[in-house]
Amino acid sequence: MFTTEPVALPELGRRARAAARALALAPTGAKDAALALAADLLEERAGEILDANATDVARAGNAGTNEAVIDRLRLSGDRVGAMAAGLRQVAGLADPVGQVVEGWVRPNGLRITQVRVPLGVVAIVYENRPNVTSDAFALCCKSGNAAFLRGSSAAISSNRAIASVLREALAKAGLPADALVLVEDTSREAAVEFMRLRESIDVLIPRGGPSLIAAIREHATVPVVIDGDGNCHVYVDAAADLAMAEAVVVDAKTQRPSVCNAAESLVVHRAVAPAFLPALARALPGVELVGDEASRALEASIGPATEDDFAREFLGPRLSVATVDDLDAAIAHVNRYSSGHSEAIVTTDLGSATRFTTEVDAAAVLVNASTRFVDGERFGFGAEIGISTQKLHARGPMGLRELTTTKYVVHGDGHTVA
Amino acid sequence: MFTTEPVALPELGRRARAAARALALAPTGAKDAALALAADLLEERAGEILDANATDVARAGNAGTNEAVIDRLRLSGDRVGAMAAGLRQVAGLADPVGQVVEGWVRPNGLRITQVRVPLGVVAIVYENRPNVTSDAFALCCKSGNAAFLRGSSAAISSNRAIASVLREALAKAGLPADALVLVEDTSREAAVEFMRLRESIDVLIPRGGPSLIAAIREHATVPVVIDGDGNCHVYVDAAADLAMAEAVVVDAKTQRPSVCNAAESLVVHRAVAPAFLPALARALPGVELVGDEASRALEASIGPATEDDFAREFLGPRLSVATVDDLDAAIAHVNRYSSGHSEAIVTTDLGSATRFTTEVDAAAVLVNASTRFVDGERFGFGAEIGISTQKLHARGPMGLRELTTTKYVVHGDGHTVA
Repeated sequence: MFTTEPVALPELGRRARAAARALALAPTGAKDAALALAADLLEERAGEILDANATDVARAGNAGTNEAVIDRLRLSGDRVGAMAAGLRQVAGLADPVGQVVEGWVRPNGLRITQVRVPLGVVAIVYENRPNVTSDAFALCCKSGNAAFLRGSSAAISSNRAIASVLREALAKAGLPADALVLVEDTSREAAVEFMRLRESIDVLIPRGGPSLIAAIREHATVPVVIDGDGNCHVYVDAAADLAMAEAVVVDAKTQRPSVCNAAESLVVHRAVAPAFLPALARALPGVELVGDEASRALEASIGPATEDDFAREFLGPRLSVATVDDLDAAIAHVNRYSSGHSEAIVTTDLGSATRFTTEVDAAAVLVNASTRFVDGERFGFGAEIGISTQKLHARGPMGLRELTTTKYVVHGDGHTVA
Repeated sequence: MFTTEPVALPELGRRARAAARALALAPTGAKDAALALAADLLEERAGEILDANATDVARAGNAGTNEAVIDRLRLSGDRVGAMAAGLRQVAGLADPVGQVVEGWVRPNGLRITQVRVPLGVVAIVYENRPNVTSDAFALCCKSGNAAFLRGSSAAISSNRAIASVLREALAKAGLPADALVLVEDTSREAAVEFMRLRESIDVLIPRGGPSLIAAIREHATVPVVIDGDGNCHVYVDAAADLAMAEAVVVDAKTQRPSVCNAAESLVVHRAVAPAFLPALARALPGVELVGDEASRALEASIGPATEDDFAREFLGPRLSVATVDDLDAAIAHVNRYSSGHSEAIVTTDLGSATRFTTEVDAAAVLVNASTRFVDGERFGFGAEIGISTQKLHARGPMGLRELTTTKYVVHGDGHTVA
């Protein structure tokens, strides 16, 4: 399916573009069939995929790559099974293409509808997890887009093996194999060229850490949707149920500390801080607390926080603590340090809840719920391609709908303006 | 209101950002009051604005600027009156802020709503028309956004006078005057700096010609919505009512040839070309027709078309003509040369209409209607900030809704993931 002769990026882009035109018109049944076939084939050929993955893992081991990275790179029978399950799950979701967003008739009789259509070619740049090859493909295919994928050099053998299976499934379902194009040149130069392929890429969604996002911001000239940092706060209001507040903070901080919707900062009203902070410290063994002077005066285990501690996404067992005099100060603190991802308040006071949700500027604001809920699966989207922290096009968890654009379809009876 | 001391761009950006936070929370009544006051003040102080404009016009005249440009620059009592009317019209539109796009309850009881909120700071770069200062402000203000405006050096006195009036109206309505910030440094360096003010600009919408768009594409690092070219086609199908087709083509080409939704290309099925082309040529006196060999064989007044003629937006009395063998060829021709703006088919055949609207990739596709209808006013949006030819965020005519983003508001009862 893939030749050893490297194909130039613009040519790969043209192939994806041509396939996108076909996929945009493909009926739901054909897309679902491709996803189902892909799931079956992934399971059938798991051995082949695991062999390719073993090559990647061995190479990474020889290069002295750290164990956390190798863990993200490593596949197993279970992980291949999860990829197949993901494909089947996406096949079961509603097709967003053709959905009518709005429709109306103008006084002159012109009939206007706004209809969802695929974006075209969706490019994904990602890091070491080979399952993204399959997961991203599933969402792109179901939403009628060609997937133009560029993974890391560390995962190239795994990605090539997975892409080969997925392309075979596309062809078996009567769809163009180029509805999935994998970039095999994983050099830095090719990455920059990829981010600038305006004629072939309708949107680029990076899946990765700060250095990848920084590279995108510096080099990309194609339209992007940024899945950025989450410096998420939980604010415990004066009127909070403190047992609920503790449960929410513990969940938001510790249920999975390495993800973007985990909490990094606690903001606590000074009226409840004396009761809350000591109890919270006991409920968070293994979590390093760093805070302002007021919080440290109330709980000895809290270390001093720098300005940077309030601004950073720790992605690990650390939590910054700020004590505030009132709701205004809480909202100001959150808006100053927020990365615009997910911000929560715990309160029983309706006015506080309303002001917090209205005045805090973030993709998601939560009342009496953990920030960890902000996620496509937990929102009920069935699957997600990422969580946008930008304001244009999509904000918050992105599902199939966010991989579409719209087209106005206008019907007249010979209408002229003159 | 404006000092003679130039204020640095980042400082202007900070002022706009601060004002945006206030405007985002302003009730509809306050925004409408500011717009109504602004309309009254524009009329009251029309003399002052016309004096300032006379300075700009005289300077342009002395510099030998061409008459078409001076016409766009020149204001009159009527034009100031139209600006005031525009402000009042926008005040009468529904406020998009707070509209609930969707809402649902998860099986675990979590209640999720997706709510429209302002983008924040909307930057507009525009050319010589001073009325854009007022028109853009109106839409930004109503949608709860601060307007960060940069007009041309040729219009600086007019823009300064208009902005001064609008800022006064904001202050009188109890809103921050910095909800309109005009960049007074109109140098090229400042323009590039403006396009890169990521911390202060949430979206940049250029209003202008190809050289402005090219500069944005080259330099901008802020999110943009491009209001691009319109190389619009009308396809006359084998099953077209030829009288209707002639009326639609004449309207699309001549009703206002200088605008982006005017037709630039005719595509005609060869079955009807012999009857249609000679009649059309008679119906388009003063329009230069350039076409392929087949069309020229049927109508002697059609001159030879180059490849460039099919790809270009003429914005004037010229129309390219392509003759095609079938609907497939028509769709292929349109998709090859389209700039993704507005594309029309004239046909009585349902199958042709369906295939054309489905398979042509553009912001708007029309059946039996002139491309000139693709416009915020004619779509019923009340006003428009532009017509997007990109696919992300907004596609087609952009009204108040397109100047918003969304925020997810999530309510729980102490929900945790663990």
